[in-house]
Amino acid sequence: MRDEEPTGPPESPPGPRRRLLGFAPDRLARQLEFVLEVDRLKTVLRRTTLSDRSRHENSAEHSWHLALMAILLAEHAEEEIDLARTVEMLLVHDVVEVDAGDTFCYDEAGYLDKDERERRAAERLFGLLPVDQGERLRALWEEFERRESPEARFAAALDRLQPMMLNYLTEGHSWQQHGVREHQVLARNRPIEEGSRGLWSLAERFLADAVASGILRR
Amino acid sequence: MRDEEPTGPPESPPGPRRRLLGFAPDRLARQLEFVLEVDRLKTVLRRTTLSDRSRHENSAEHSWHLALMAILLAEHAEEEIDLARTVEMLLVHDVVEVDAGDTFCYDEAGYLDKDERERRAAERLFGLLPVDQGERLRALWEEFERRESPEARFAAALDRLQPMMLNYLTEGHSWQQHGVREHQVLARNRPIEEGSRGLWSLAERFLADAVASGILRR
Repeated sequence: MRDEEPTGPPESPPGPRRRLLGFAPDRLARQLEFVLEVDRLKTVLRRTTLSDRSRHENSAEHSWHLALMAILLAEHAEEEIDLARTVEMLLVHDVVEVDAGDTFCYDEAGYLDKDERERRAAERLFGLLPVDQGERLRALWEEFERRESPEARFAAALDRLQPMMLNYLTEGHSWQQHGVREHQVLARNRPIEEGSRGLWSLAERFLADAVASGILRR
Repeated sequence: MRDEEPTGPPESPPGPRRRLLGFAPDRLARQLEFVLEVDRLKTVLRRTTLSDRSRHENSAEHSWHLALMAILLAEHAEEEIDLARTVEMLLVHDVVEVDAGDTFCYDEAGYLDKDERERRAAERLFGLLPVDQGERLRALWEEFERRESPEARFAAALDRLQPMMLNYLTEGHSWQQHGVREHQVLARNRPIEEGSRGLWSLAERFLADAVASGILRR
């Protein structure tokens, strides 16, 4: 599963990834194996579309967008945060989707086994790295999932605000496509308030407008 | 230019972006205007393809990949670096392409007016932000372009190494498509050595293999 080649007969030449990693000292090879493996996050599609509606957003560019938002919006965090840790958390928060796929936030069936799928993915992916780095990134990812630190709460707020804004900009494209209603959006996104009352207050206002103008069903 | 609607008759309703920003206090509105404007970086295509060759890479997901690489590979930097600054620099290093487009690194004609196109783009884009943040991000972008700090040299090394690795993994896809030859790749990428001798040593080895195996022309 780690390379594009099947385990062929012993004389089959190693694929380009194996050859590249073979040129690196062991620790660097493990770091680069992870780096090359997560290239696939660029092919994991989310339900949200870009603001120009041209196509669905992928999880890698979504992660870039959130990390940049953290840098610009840090002053709106509810509690004091370590910005560098928040940015790192956002850069890795979706990498498990390389194996587990993106689970649509309003997909109740998908959520039943989401934890187990993502736990297995974390095991394999972070396990590619040197142990110290693998443990560190895995801990950051778990911290994000549990929302038990100021950084995780703020990161989770951005992770919810960004798709909501894209939905509003596209006049509810993904809400309508999936029959999502106001009470679901409110329930899903209320945790924004724990990360930033300022950003939640903005969200409440544009959601009310989305309902009033008919792009989000009551 | 800042919104998707043309300046219509005065009674035309404001588009969704204007309405959304209208719900935010002034400083937050300026921050979000930038955040929403750079969503378009996801549509700026580079010449490199993803490692599975399914499509061209865009500049937003490329920026995510580099920021993650910085976190994992910081120990290979030639000089001591401030990792948080390096990551921020990588997150913004390509945003000017929202206006200026991606300039292929082996396109000599495109490079003639690249500086001027990107300078104008920086003026407009960073000018959307509150002044303190706009100046800070613009300074980071200029620092990256000039490669005059340890952080900028390491960031530039990653920005060159990543597409070279993708090229090697795809058996020289973009090198061959654009008739790029070994001496051009060496000239373009030698600055990696200033940022990290370890990473340059790896690059030299896999480039030599690329030439030996015929995927990069001498």
